[in-house]
Formats: sequence, structure tokens, C-alpha cells
Amino acid sequence: MKVSEIGEFGLIDLIDQRVGRFTYPVLMGIGDDASILHGDSAYDLVTTTDMLMEGVHFLMGKTPPYDLGYKSHTVNLSDVAAMGAIPVQSFLSLALPLDAEVESVKSFLEGFLDAGPGVQLSGGDTVSSLSGWGISVTVIGRVLSGRALRRDTAQPGDTIWLSGPVGDSAAGLAILLGKAVPESPEEAAFLTEKHNRPVPQLKMGRILAQGDLSKCAIDMSDGLLQDLGHICERSGVGARLDLENIPLSPQIISLGKKNGVDPLREWALGGGEDYSLIFTMRPDQEKRLEKVLEHEDLEAVPIGQIVPGKEISLVERGKQIPFEGIGGYNHFKKGD
Amino acid sequence: MKVSEIGEFGLIDLIDQRVGRFTYPVLMGIGDDASILHGDSAYDLVTTTDMLMEGVHFLMGKTPPYDLGYKSHTVNLSDVAAMGAIPVQSFLSLALPLDAEVESVKSFLEGFLDAGPGVQLSGGDTVSSLSGWGISVTVIGRVLSGRALRRDTAQPGDTIWLSGPVGDSAAGLAILLGKAVPESPEEAAFLTEKHNRPVPQLKMGRILAQGDLSKCAIDMSDGLLQDLGHICERSGVGARLDLENIPLSPQIISLGKKNGVDPLREWALGGGEDYSLIFTMRPDQEKRLEKVLEHEDLEAVPIGQIVPGKEISLVERGKQIPFEGIGGYNHFKKGD
Repeated sequence: MKVSEIGEFGLIDLIDQRVGRFTYPVLMGIGDDASILHGDSAYDLVTTTDMLMEGVHFLMGKTPPYDLGYKSHTVNLSDVAAMGAIPVQSFLSLALPLDAEVESVKSFLEGFLDAGPGVQLSGGDTVSSLSGWGISVTVIGRVLSGRALRRDTAQPGDTIWLSGPVGDSAAGLAILLGKAVPESPEEAAFLTEKHNRPVPQLKMGRILAQGDLSKCAIDMSDGLLQDLGHICERSGVGARLDLENIPLSPQIISLGKKNGVDPLREWALGGGEDYSLIFTMRPDQEKRLEKVLEHEDLEAVPIGQIVPGKEISLVERGKQIPFEGIGGYNHFKKGD
Repeated sequence: MKVSEIGEFGLIDLIDQRVGRFTYPVLMGIGDDASILHGDSAYDLVTTTDMLMEGVHFLMGKTPPYDLGYKSHTVNLSDVAAMGAIPVQSFLSLALPLDAEVESVKSFLEGFLDAGPGVQLSGGDTVSSLSGWGISVTVIGRVLSGRALRRDTAQPGDTIWLSGPVGDSAAGLAILLGKAVPESPEEAAFLTEKHNRPVPQLKMGRILAQGDLSKCAIDMSDGLLQDLGHICERSGVGARLDLENIPLSPQIISLGKKNGVDPLREWALGGGEDYSLIFTMRPDQEKRLEKVLEHEDLEAVPIGQIVPGKEISLVERGKQIPFEGIGGYNHFKKGD
């Protein structure tokens, strides 16, 4: 059997099942945004790692090396944010073709470092590649002991929150790929910037964990529905999404109008790489959260509720609506 | 300028210089076998990462996936050993062609897990690749606070020790590549096993650190001369190597005889991937070390001395000899 037949999640399941339960001092192994290692007193350590391959995740001619470096760091910092942790160390491994330009490597490095000010680049590897660029990044962060935000801690009755507009990155990608025509250069710049230089929600994650406001979060890399699905699967719960509450930027609404598509269905529900946080919270914490958001100048909006069962339902003005034409990206699976 | 013109170490220097000094809580950044992160009381954390690319580090048709998994974990466990630490968590990222066989991935995973019993596989990434396999492994270990074995702590007067025979892996590779003809199938099996399934010296590293016997170690990945050179460069010292003391296995001596080459010069001094430890020690610790080695059933032999200056000199029966025809592998540099 080929890996294309079992897909990315099939492959992860295969590894997960073989590895089995993790044991102390590892508090969380495979299955969350990052692993959790029990520290010796005040802090736990979270670790996350991602790999990006030329031709699959990026095209060297299309993405400026600076943006590539920026984004390869950001996606990992975002995982650390989703654990409620503060990033401390990063590690960068680069596989490079022999004819790669040193200037490109320098630009990549600048982008990488700019994405994580205060995060110490502490090691990595440099190897040659017979094909294109390969990038592997690992980030280690610290979180107050026992306070890490996990995927498996959502409970029926929790409100589902979103820490920012969703769909901008997918809309920016559509513009970059020539699949959507922007209304203005400013709109194009705004949306493509969201795709090329997403901002990890580190402050939001840290405040949720330090303030014990939430136990459960995930960062949106695969898309709103798919990432919420990860929470539901790991927590053994279902969810109701109130579509009219999902925040959309004015730019994505304008782009949808111009191109005759529904931005919610086209970009917000299925499109990935927004790197906002989805988190869940007991309703009685709402007042505390609102005070903190105001004080810290952060935004988050409630978009639904965790429910018993294991289904996600989409509700628009009180009416349940079907899922058709909404999906997320899955490596290895052909045709997705 | 192309990366092939500045080479692997030029690339690392470029990154090192741009990143600059590391700051607390990072006790060691780029430049050692692993980084060191200050823990909150009893332990420090060491982290190391390596990347392997098909066609550069291995050939899928030539290396069984089990051995590949084994070795990709071992090289990182060896770095943890060289820090005197106990490995706790590992992370595995795989870039796989769509037509990769699920059975190959399973075998790879078995080899990976067998190489590190007790080390928790805690995460990673699975992505598709347009070319061959790409493997990135990260391992985190724990070491008593302040006791990590570093490269920058060798002092003139220290004795240089080696934790096992050297050159077997390079000799095994020569057999695999058809560049050397073995005396017997047993000899071939012994040497190729040393190449395909090297054993990380975890017990040795841990005992050196826990017993405060050494402050300085490195694992032999690039080759005896090159790795000793890393210690000298980082510590600002020179070294004298007593060639007649360098331990060679009976198998490598026999292979050299059969093929008409000097095993010391051909495989032991310049050949990499033995993953024994080079460590340095104050001479007054020798008695303590010998007792511990006997008690723990470990071996190590003195092979020279750290000296002032920055040169490495090779001495054979009291006579200094030249370096010619000895080197180590350097990624990116053409013709090395």
C-alpha cells in the first residue's frame, strides 16, 4: 500500500497506535499542537516541530525567502501560542541545493529571526539536497506547570471562541494564485500579507493560560472546521457553530462580492493558515475574559458551543445547514 | 554566491554570527552537540536535531528502512550522550513521496523506536515530498544542572580519551560501497553493522556527567580529527594525538591487511560516524575513571593530551608525522 492511499491522518494514526500511551515525565505526546514535558517545579515545557518542502508547501520562485523564513518560524510559534506557552528556543534545519544562493539563505534567516524576537535560535542542521529546499523547525516554549492549553479538555457547555477574523489567509492565497481578482491594491496587500506573514497569537495564548481562563485551544492551520474537528475528536465532544457570528474582515467580504463567491464558505470555513486561536471556555468566565481582552487590547468573539456527541453542526440564523463544498487540506490524499 | 562555495561550516558561521550571543535561560546555543536550556532547579535540558536527505545521506534502495530509522534516531541520541544527558523525548518529521510504501514507513518506525527504548516519541510532522524521503529528528534530554559536557571546556593538560575503537563505520561503508573486500562474511557483518546500527554511548556520557569526571565531550560523527578539531576550536586549545594509542578493532586491522591499506589513516582518523565519545579529563581523575569503567563494564582509552595553542599534532612513537590524505566529510563543499 502507498502512503497516498492512507493519507496524512492515516499515517499519523499508524504512528500514534504503534507508539501507544506516553508516560511521565511526558504529559502529552502525539496528538496536540505540541508535546508537554513536565518540568521540575514551576514550568512545563512544550515542544513543536514542522517540516516544509519546496514544491509542496512553497515555490522558491514565488515566495520571497524572507517571507518563507518568517512563515516557517511563525507556524511553530503559533503552535506554542496554542499551548498557552512562551517560546524560548528555536531550532532550524535547512536542506539546500548546492546552487542555492547565499543571499537567499541570508534573507530567509532575517525573516526567521524577525518572526520571533526574543526567541533564541539555539541550533539546527545544514545539509545538502539533491532536489529543492527542505525546512524543519522546532520550537520549545515554557508554560506554568499544569496550565498548558490542550485539545482534549473541551467540555459540553463550553463556549467556543475565535481570536480574530478567519479566511484572510486563504483569500490572500487565492489572489496570489490568480483565482480571485482584488478590488484594490490595498485589499490585495492586506490579504496576501495575512497569507505570507501571519502573526502568532502568543499574547492571547499566554493570557488564557496564565489567567486560567481556558483549558483548551488550537491554532488554525488546517482551517476552522478541521481544527475545531481536532478539538472535538480529542475531547470526545461535538460542536455547534453559529455561522453569523464568525468574524470576517471587510477585505474578505469585498473580495467575495467582487468575485461572486460567499467568503464564509469559500475561504473562512475550509481555508487554512489563519493562525488565529480557537479556544473554549466555561460560560461563567465570560466577564473575566472580557475585562482581560479590554485591558490587554485583544479581540475574541464567541462563535458557538461545545455540545455532547461527536458531530459538528453549522447553524445560520437558527437553521441547520449542510456541509457541502467545505474541506481542509490533507497531505498525501490525492484529489483533496 | 552559491552555498557550495562557502560550504557547510561557512553556512553555520554565517548563521552563528548573525544570531550572536545567546542569553539566559539558554546556556548554550549554536556550536555544541546540543543546546542547553536552564531548567528551574535540578535539571538542565539539552536539545539536538539532525536532518537526513535521500540521495545525500542514504539511498532508499541500498539502506533497509529499519536501519534508516534506527540510524536517524541514533545520531541524535549520540548527541545527547555527548552532552552527558539522558534522552527523554524524541520528535520525528518525515517528508515522503506519494508512492512511498506504508510497509517501509512501518519498518522505519520500528528501527527508530528500537534505537531508543524508553525515549518517548512525542510528536513530529508528516508531509509529502516531490522528490525523495526527507527525515528530521529532534531529541530532548535531561542532565544534572550545570553538569552538561560541552565542547568549549577542554583545558591544556587534560588527557584526551576515546570511548571505543574508531574507523569501523568507515570501513563498513567501504565494504558496502565495494571499495574494500572483506576477509570473511563475519568480518563484513561486524563492520557493516557498525555503520548501519551504531550504538549511542548513553551510559558513558551519563556517567561522565553524573560523576563529574569530565566537563568536555563530543561524539564522533565527522571523524576523529575533525571532531577533536571542534573541541580545540571551541575551547581555544591544541591537541597532541598519540597514534599508537588509538584503538582499532581486529576486524579493521584484518580488512586493512587484505586490502593493502593502513586502517588508521584510511578509516580511523578521517572516517566519520563511529559515534564513540571523545572526552577530556584532568589527569588527577584517572584513578576514579578507571574504577568507574571497571564497575560499569565500560571501556575508554587515553589517546593524547590537550596542549596550549591551536594546532593538532599527530605523534607516532615520539615522532611528529604529517597530515596528508586525511580529511572529514563536509556538506556543500564540492570535491571534498
